[in-house]
Amino acid sequence: MSSPIDDLFSLPVSFLDNAPGEIALSTRIRLARNLAGLPFPNAASQEEKCDICDKITAAVNDGHILDFGKKHREFDLAQLSDIDRNVLLERRLASAEFIAPPLEGKRLLVCPLERCSIMVNEEDQIRMQSIRPGFQLQEVYEEINAIDDALSEQLEFAFDNQLGFLTSCPTNAGTGMRASVMLHLPALVLSGQILPTIQGINKLHLAVRGIFGEGTDNRGNLFQISNQYTLGESEAKTIASLDAVITQLILHEKQARKNLLQRDRFTLLDNIGRAYGILRHSYKLSSAETLQSLSFVRMGVDMGFFASIDIKAVNELFIAIGSAHLQKSAGRSLSDTERDISRAELCRQKLK
Amino acid sequence: MSSPIDDLFSLPVSFLDNAPGEIALSTRIRLARNLAGLPFPNAASQEEKCDICDKITAAVNDGHILDFGKKHREFDLAQLSDIDRNVLLERRLASAEFIAPPLEGKRLLVCPLERCSIMVNEEDQIRMQSIRPGFQLQEVYEEINAIDDALSEQLEFAFDNQLGFLTSCPTNAGTGMRASVMLHLPALVLSGQILPTIQGINKLHLAVRGIFGEGTDNRGNLFQISNQYTLGESEAKTIASLDAVITQLILHEKQARKNLLQRDRFTLLDNIGRAYGILRHSYKLSSAETLQSLSFVRMGVDMGFFASIDIKAVNELFIAIGSAHLQKSAGRSLSDTERDISRAELCRQKLK
Repeated sequence: MSSPIDDLFSLPVSFLDNAPGEIALSTRIRLARNLAGLPFPNAASQEEKCDICDKITAAVNDGHILDFGKKHREFDLAQLSDIDRNVLLERRLASAEFIAPPLEGKRLLVCPLERCSIMVNEEDQIRMQSIRPGFQLQEVYEEINAIDDALSEQLEFAFDNQLGFLTSCPTNAGTGMRASVMLHLPALVLSGQILPTIQGINKLHLAVRGIFGEGTDNRGNLFQISNQYTLGESEAKTIASLDAVITQLILHEKQARKNLLQRDRFTLLDNIGRAYGILRHSYKLSSAETLQSLSFVRMGVDMGFFASIDIKAVNELFIAIGSAHLQKSAGRSLSDTERDISRAELCRQKLK
Repeated sequence: MSSPIDDLFSLPVSFLDNAPGEIALSTRIRLARNLAGLPFPNAASQEEKCDICDKITAAVNDGHILDFGKKHREFDLAQLSDIDRNVLLERRLASAEFIAPPLEGKRLLVCPLERCSIMVNEEDQIRMQSIRPGFQLQEVYEEINAIDDALSEQLEFAFDNQLGFLTSCPTNAGTGMRASVMLHLPALVLSGQILPTIQGINKLHLAVRGIFGEGTDNRGNLFQISNQYTLGESEAKTIASLDAVITQLILHEKQARKNLLQRDRFTLLDNIGRAYGILRHSYKLSSAETLQSLSFVRMGVDMGFFASIDIKAVNELFIAIGSAHLQKSAGRSLSDTERDISRAELCRQKLK
């Protein structure tokens, strides 16, 4: 049963190539754009959406915009199975809205390294993103900026001199930019400092979300911090203030780990040890328990408690234990119980 | 800091030398006796109790009743520390009542192998017991019977032709015997059959108790099954009916294990695997969680899931993780948290 995404699925998830000790798992920026004179996706007919797909694809092709040494990949969402679409979601190449019906007229373009991609006809006609491992706001910004510039040479974007870039939802108008950093904050959670920390971040007009974006919980002690506003502030300023807050948060998490180690060493070791024990010896694992356990094991590796565990194996598991990834690996759809069993099997193997 | 029980403490607990696959952990029979013409302990003065101690000790010495190749041990409870007394409780050589104040005039006599012992001035003047690993009702009965006979050659017991042996509490009068078998029934618990099983046992006039006797819960999935009545039934008949019920219960537990393996293999493996993971990797373990985890690991060893774990190591941990044993090993009293830490350390070491 081959499918269009098999080749992509076989790649390691590029944004998870973290070094040990990195509190930031990944940095991502996406820009929302629309073409001048063409309807927003929610107002477009199926024909118009297909037309927009072709226009944007042609521009990407002509400018070799996503071809980094090798041709980019293209996926028409309507031609993908439910599992394949969810694999794209779990790899953060597609949003929940993008993979939900109606699927006609939606296309995903992905660069060979999976680092840059464009969703065509999500909420906006163009949602382009760049995502990298670790804390690399500047690098990611430069990359997505270059793609934006190259695209704008081929296409005319809907732009207003007062408002900036026009978008389907007014909360994105202006820069159309959302810059986010995924932070791993287990020590702040364990020491009960996470709630005041989040409240402090919110006061700085930044949003805090769970691993899969808006409305998701903080499973795995993973927090996405991103800018809330796109209007009335330049991209550079938005990124500079996000950069400053993330830098502070990383220091807080590191300090919280030191404090736990000094003041409550056995509670820390116990949380890490049990998490490892569960991943290494269970035969049924829910997604939530696995993410929580991976989180503590990752902190343990960061803090040097596991000489024999490769941080890459742990980082990759964060994505590989997703329901769609498990089903894609199995080559068929799995019941809830079957997923829990195969999730446990994968963790036992990878953490041997 | 040496103490009178150091020598005893250094011995492996004799009744825990089980073979793998044995559902019955241990078999124990105790007989309650009192001396004719001397007051029961609760009515005796301190002087009288000391006098009784000496009389019984002299009889044991003269008859070499507890000297199996080597001299027996004697402990005056008033000379033992709180930790030492609790070590005796955890090794099932003393009851909770016996180690509680007043301690004056209470003495424990223990045979060199720890298998036979006599509490002097517990509820009755004499509480003699024999305890062995596994399901050995007949052997234990013969042994305690021989000790009883030998003692009765030296001493005159309080005996009534109608009632039989007289005891402090009427529920023990008659045979003065309580025969009990400690069963390990994790599969009956896991499959939800334990409650109807216990209700069935109670209807047969047998008592079901937890690991530390009356009023304790079934932590570790351990159940002590014993005769409830001592009046109007011969020792032989009591033992025969207990024997029949235990034989049935062992079959039920074995069948429940087979059923779990066939019908819900992954739930079974998951319980066993997690239990091992927790014992092997935690840094803080409560007594209750440890017993529960040891129980599942013991079942796993029984069922052949752990090639590398010695059943002896698991059986010994059931006693060695007791609070008094941990403190005795540490050579000092430990706070609750310190106990949990040293309990986890012991489990990590022993299950390596």
